Amino acid sequence: MQSVIKGLLQKNGSKIVFFVMDGLGGLPLGDPRSPFKGKTELEAAFTPNLDKLAQNSACGLHVPVGFGITPGSGPGHLGLFGYDPVEWEIGRGILEALGLGLEVKRTDVAIRCNYATIENHVVTDRRAGRPATEKMRKVTERLQKQIPEINGVRLIFGPGMEHRFAVIMRFPEALQPEAAMINDSDPQAEGRAPLPLIPRHPKAQKVAEVAQKFIDRAAAVLKDDHPQNFVLVRGFSTHPRMPSFAEAYGLRGLAIATYPMYRGLARLIGMDAPDFSGDVSGQIEYMKDNWDDYDFFFVHFKKTDSFGEDGNFAGKVGKIEEADRALPAILALKPNVLVVTGDHSTPAVMKSHSWHPVPVILSAPYVLGGLTEGFSERQCARGELGVFPSVSLMPLALANAGRLKKFGS
Amino acid sequence: MQSVIKGLLQKNGSKIVFFVMDGLGGLPLGDPRSPFKGKTELEAAFTPNLDKLAQNSACGLHVPVGFGITPGSGPGHLGLFGYDPVEWEIGRGILEALGLGLEVKRTDVAIRCNYATIENHVVTDRRAGRPATEKMRKVTERLQKQIPEINGVRLIFGPGMEHRFAVIMRFPEALQPEAAMINDSDPQAEGRAPLPLIPRHPKAQKVAEVAQKFIDRAAAVLKDDHPQNFVLVRGFSTHPRMPSFAEAYGLRGLAIATYPMYRGLARLIGMDAPDFSGDVSGQIEYMKDNWDDYDFFFVHFKKTDSFGEDGNFAGKVGKIEEADRALPAILALKPNVLVVTGDHSTPAVMKSHSWHPVPVILSAPYVLGGLTEGFSERQCARGELGVFPSVSLMPLALANAGRLKKFGS
Repeated sequence: MQSVIKGLLQKNGSKIVFFVMDGLGGLPLGDPRSPFKGKTELEAAFTPNLDKLAQNSACGLHVPVGFGITPGSGPGHLGLFGYDPVEWEIGRGILEALGLGLEVKRTDVAIRCNYATIENHVVTDRRAGRPATEKMRKVTERLQKQIPEINGVRLIFGPGMEHRFAVIMRFPEALQPEAAMINDSDPQAEGRAPLPLIPRHPKAQKVAEVAQKFIDRAAAVLKDDHPQNFVLVRGFSTHPRMPSFAEAYGLRGLAIATYPMYRGLARLIGMDAPDFSGDVSGQIEYMKDNWDDYDFFFVHFKKTDSFGEDGNFAGKVGKIEEADRALPAILALKPNVLVVTGDHSTPAVMKSHSWHPVPVILSAPYVLGGLTEGFSERQCARGELGVFPSVSLMPLALANAGRLKKFGS
Repeated sequence: MQSVIKGLLQKNGSKIVFFVMDGLGGLPLGDPRSPFKGKTELEAAFTPNLDKLAQNSACGLHVPVGFGITPGSGPGHLGLFGYDPVEWEIGRGILEALGLGLEVKRTDVAIRCNYATIENHVVTDRRAGRPATEKMRKVTERLQKQIPEINGVRLIFGPGMEHRFAVIMRFPEALQPEAAMINDSDPQAEGRAPLPLIPRHPKAQKVAEVAQKFIDRAAAVLKDDHPQNFVLVRGFSTHPRMPSFAEAYGLRGLAIATYPMYRGLARLIGMDAPDFSGDVSGQIEYMKDNWDDYDFFFVHFKKTDSFGEDGNFAGKVGKIEEADRALPAILALKPNVLVVTGDHSTPAVMKSHSWHPVPVILSAPYVLGGLTEGFSERQCARGELGVFPSVSLMPLALANAGRLKKFGS
């Protein structure tokens, strides 16, 4: 469908805003002692602004990957941006690197790394005793300084939590996906030797050589650093090579996100995503300051998901109410199309992401409206958009922004 | 999507029950003299148990093959089990054989056969005057006895109604689908000679030879049996070779069905499907007795479809009420996921299968619920599942049973 959309694009001065509350969708609370019993997080929250918007908008429930499939954050956002998450799977190494704030280009192979303990050629602790994050940051900086490149391939290190870090191998030329067809060195159990890296495709030969040299040189640098005296690597992956947001939709996109992974995902499809910290009011202020320079704004609101993951129903309710209070400032910018939704559901009662369809408001001049009394999962189930795939949201937004010509005549 | 699902499977001790009322979906009765005027069969039926279940469940309407497409029983059930009925077409010969209670293996070619009348090498009656079923059963048994095998290929006969029967040719080795690329011998009109069997693929050569010998030898056996002195063959088909239920979902499945065709379909995908006769209470009792040995239970309730096909609105209403009375015994087993639905619609007012989406209740802990007042087509149209493809039911059931991991990260 993306290729059909591409053939219909036309430019205008319209502005599209996606206000994404991470993990927005929820489920009814069972606890009979709670005043929220029987209500979802959205139903329990006091959201006069969102309710009014829903009453006058096209509403529905969108399915991120497929019925019954619980999406990770990567697939959830790809779907929102109109990229089929099954077609465009983002490798584990890439996601890890993005999450640590590294940039990933088409010349890169990314890997997830663990500090590990090795004794007599056998891995005795795959996590090096879970060392302190700050201490390992310095070790990673030492590796960066001592191994800046191998065979003309630049290495870029991203320190992570405890024993984790990521490495990007930046080659001089763009790579094919086959270049990452290499097994993990992690033997997945203690008491075993690290696995040798074996390229599964001729195009992966050079990558495997560089990676093996990296492992060997890291071991030399770390030889006196017991228990973190070795590095295990996993999740070799290349840039997914999907069309950029500009190519796919003719839009200049700006991502305003406080977490590195969401900025990284946005950069992967060519949006601008400057480092940003601040609350949702600050995000909207930043959007206002950059209003003239972009066509599409992705405002990412993280905390709804975090509280959902923690099983903190009231905390998630509070964050939804915070988002509701921020809504008038978004509406004051008069976007031509405003989408308010989540990337997936994270019901507090499940303490995890879930497969449930995600409520969505699409506010634009040419909608039916009048079908929903407020903004919630159950209200959106009655909406004019029905239950539909997430990848259809972008075409709907483009159409409502007047950016799609007629198909055929 | 089935391959995505396969990659996400995880095992647990959960139990999934599909209670399938054949041809469940209906349409409003027009007859102004009837107390049921304007109501569908489900709306007319007194179903307190189903209504209560629907109120607390995820409801919707599922589309078996595609909008506007009326499914046969085979495609309808394949969809329920998560196999796309367009991708996995079950050949006519296979369906006929399954319906007659024959087992079909990956070494088999199945064909539908007619007793016919031939005079001077010309077919004068394609149905041999529609002879009595019981009489023809004996003729078929005679053929089985006199032609048990040809060229090392075992023949298995299944007597049918009137002039109809099925034959399975069981080869010593597994066959490719191309082995069944052979035309029908039935000339489709009286006054014509039977068509010679011509293999359309080299792999069909041996099958065509054996089948032609079968026709010739049957003619020899039947030469004094006018009017049933010849056999016409149609619908050459092999096992559809879809992944088994265990391969696709990691589930041990038990089918409890009173009609051979539904048992046969279940066996085709590797479920256990012992011969069973009895009413729905007996089916549930049997499920209870086998509760610990399976993960998935398919309970098939046939009579809703039969009354629908007969145009007997009140009869179908009565059968729905019988099913409703059986529901508490299913709920007493406390399945983790209970799906109550049909394989397709058979509105009594149409006296046939139809293309209409089928109402469905999905009862599980993590649903919204509260959107439907009872169980009917119109109520389910308001449900949280929306109108969705039947093949999505299995992923939903697996997710609700906690059997699917997260997709991506």
